Amino acid sequence: MKKHNFNPGPSIMPEFTIKKTAEHILDMNGIGLSLMEISHRSKEYSAVNEEAQSLLKEILDIPAGYAVLFLQGGASLQFCMVPYNLLNKKAAYLETGSWAKKAIKEAKFFGEVDVVASSADRNFSYIPKNYTIPTDADYFHVTTNNTIYGTEIKKDIDSPVPLVADASSDILSRPMDVSKYAIIYGGVQKNLGPAGVGFVIIKEDILGKFERNIPTMLNYKTHIEGNSLFNTPACITVFACVQTMKWLKNLGGLKAMHRINIEKSALLYDEIDRNKLFIPTVADKEDRSIMNVTFVMHENYKELESGFLEYASSKGMVGIKGHRSVGGFRASIYNAMPKESVQAFIEVMKEFELKN
Amino acid sequence: MKKHNFNPGPSIMPEFTIKKTAEHILDMNGIGLSLMEISHRSKEYSAVNEEAQSLLKEILDIPAGYAVLFLQGGASLQFCMVPYNLLNKKAAYLETGSWAKKAIKEAKFFGEVDVVASSADRNFSYIPKNYTIPTDADYFHVTTNNTIYGTEIKKDIDSPVPLVADASSDILSRPMDVSKYAIIYGGVQKNLGPAGVGFVIIKEDILGKFERNIPTMLNYKTHIEGNSLFNTPACITVFACVQTMKWLKNLGGLKAMHRINIEKSALLYDEIDRNKLFIPTVADKEDRSIMNVTFVMHENYKELESGFLEYASSKGMVGIKGHRSVGGFRASIYNAMPKESVQAFIEVMKEFELKN
Repeated sequence: MKKHNFNPGPSIMPEFTIKKTAEHILDMNGIGLSLMEISHRSKEYSAVNEEAQSLLKEILDIPAGYAVLFLQGGASLQFCMVPYNLLNKKAAYLETGSWAKKAIKEAKFFGEVDVVASSADRNFSYIPKNYTIPTDADYFHVTTNNTIYGTEIKKDIDSPVPLVADASSDILSRPMDVSKYAIIYGGVQKNLGPAGVGFVIIKEDILGKFERNIPTMLNYKTHIEGNSLFNTPACITVFACVQTMKWLKNLGGLKAMHRINIEKSALLYDEIDRNKLFIPTVADKEDRSIMNVTFVMHENYKELESGFLEYASSKGMVGIKGHRSVGGFRASIYNAMPKESVQAFIEVMKEFELKN
Repeated sequence: MKKHNFNPGPSIMPEFTIKKTAEHILDMNGIGLSLMEISHRSKEYSAVNEEAQSLLKEILDIPAGYAVLFLQGGASLQFCMVPYNLLNKKAAYLETGSWAKKAIKEAKFFGEVDVVASSADRNFSYIPKNYTIPTDADYFHVTTNNTIYGTEIKKDIDSPVPLVADASSDILSRPMDVSKYAIIYGGVQKNLGPAGVGFVIIKEDILGKFERNIPTMLNYKTHIEGNSLFNTPACITVFACVQTMKWLKNLGGLKAMHRINIEKSALLYDEIDRNKLFIPTVADKEDRSIMNVTFVMHENYKELESGFLEYASSKGMVGIKGHRSVGGFRASIYNAMPKESVQAFIEVMKEFELKN
């Protein structure tokens, strides 16, 4: 039976990425050695490292003056690297969910944190608006997509202070105006590659504004100067990211990808809004994520929840159980998720409605 | 032509590891999904995570009271995590090469560092002896194998203070008495798996001896409590490490591996000592690494250096150029290196001697 992989992350990868990675693990470029056993200073891996940077720059249309890094430790290590490098006195954070809270917690190790707004009052089911970003903050931090709660900041924010975004779960899902950001970072394990690496897009002139002794591995300057090769990189993961970016470029880049993502998410949200069994957790359509579609059983049908999970699972749907802090269901429909899988899931929702 | 992979790291992997990893990237345990796209909380990956810990505990005979972690960032991040967690006032370090110097540099961010001995005076071509470990140090740090310089501390040290070892390039090459260490850590990319993960074997009661605010990702307690799953792990890399450990266990474990490593390194050192063209960089046989065999052209034949590199390369030898800080040649003969490749390299050395 065909599996439809709605896992929230690590998540579905393009078939192209999977096949190319397996192939090069067996034999890298036909040189008779595995991708696993070549030096990160070899000409083969140097090409991978360069291509990872140049493809991300090309696809996201990253302006001059920015460096692109691929570092181990995912977004979680960035939660601490961002304030280590940028927080002198005070930073402003927008609290839109669990991951934003984790980022805030780390910033507090380094200075004052001003949480300018929070949607905690309604279990993070919306994106706060009408907040004021303090002009004396060293930076303003947002989580662009909230994987657990299914909300997303879909427009690039105009910030009076340097804007830092954790875009772990919506990077490359749509065009972004990178020039509005000082840093865009995230784990790669949604739209880029398998787990094991974080990407960091960083405006170089944001660094060195104040004095702090930063351990070498946590200092962005180390990795900019080292071209992401200061320490031995996660070669397989970066190779896989390159394959996904090639696939995305070939598909037409971010404009095409965005159109497809809007179409896929609209199909699913329309069915949730229509189907009498379900209600969406995010009421405001403007705030609904195009990557993670969260919904729960309508209160009249609460007893059907486990039945729906079982039924969907029996039809090949994988990873649709909602996060424990929201409950219900979550369909993660990242870039690599084909429209056909979304349609198959919608069929399952319709069938289950008819049965009940 | 068959390649003989003497790369210093990332380095040769067992064929078993390469094939199993490629296979499971295409289809994990036959479940119809790739190792790349399953959740790190899935039962499939949980089994991998558990097996990584239990195999390392079994193979190294790790006593109770120790945790085994697999964390992103390699040994380089450990250079900073060790002092972040353990250095209250003063730490003692043994300076045996470039990697020891890097570890020392990071420790200085956190407190006083007492370099108890150094072999810098003779370009790190020996292991210092007869030094005194200060009893008031929070810990004593050594680099057990010096990849660049070809020296190795082959006996477990008796230390009056907690002993911390970077064993990146000789872990699992021989039995160790783990009970003598507070921490053994390293990158996995020599004897365990592809680059992208560091292993940490840590005595749990060494932690929490003094107060310091440690960012969450840099705190060992986070990862002990999180069972190496606090943040999304580098699933592919850990999976590959498990395969290598299965291969090693099947081969007879560390006693068998050690015997093979002694045999392989003896063959090579004997040839270097015999061959009129070459001289070893490490004179004292007791200090010679069984993992990285370093040697240079005899002074009478200096002009043949590039010729030998070319000749060896034409015979399929890969990665034998010495590190720039030593020059000459380095044959890295990690666990996965077959005796046949060592013999093939010795043949090349003999042929080149005959030609000249």
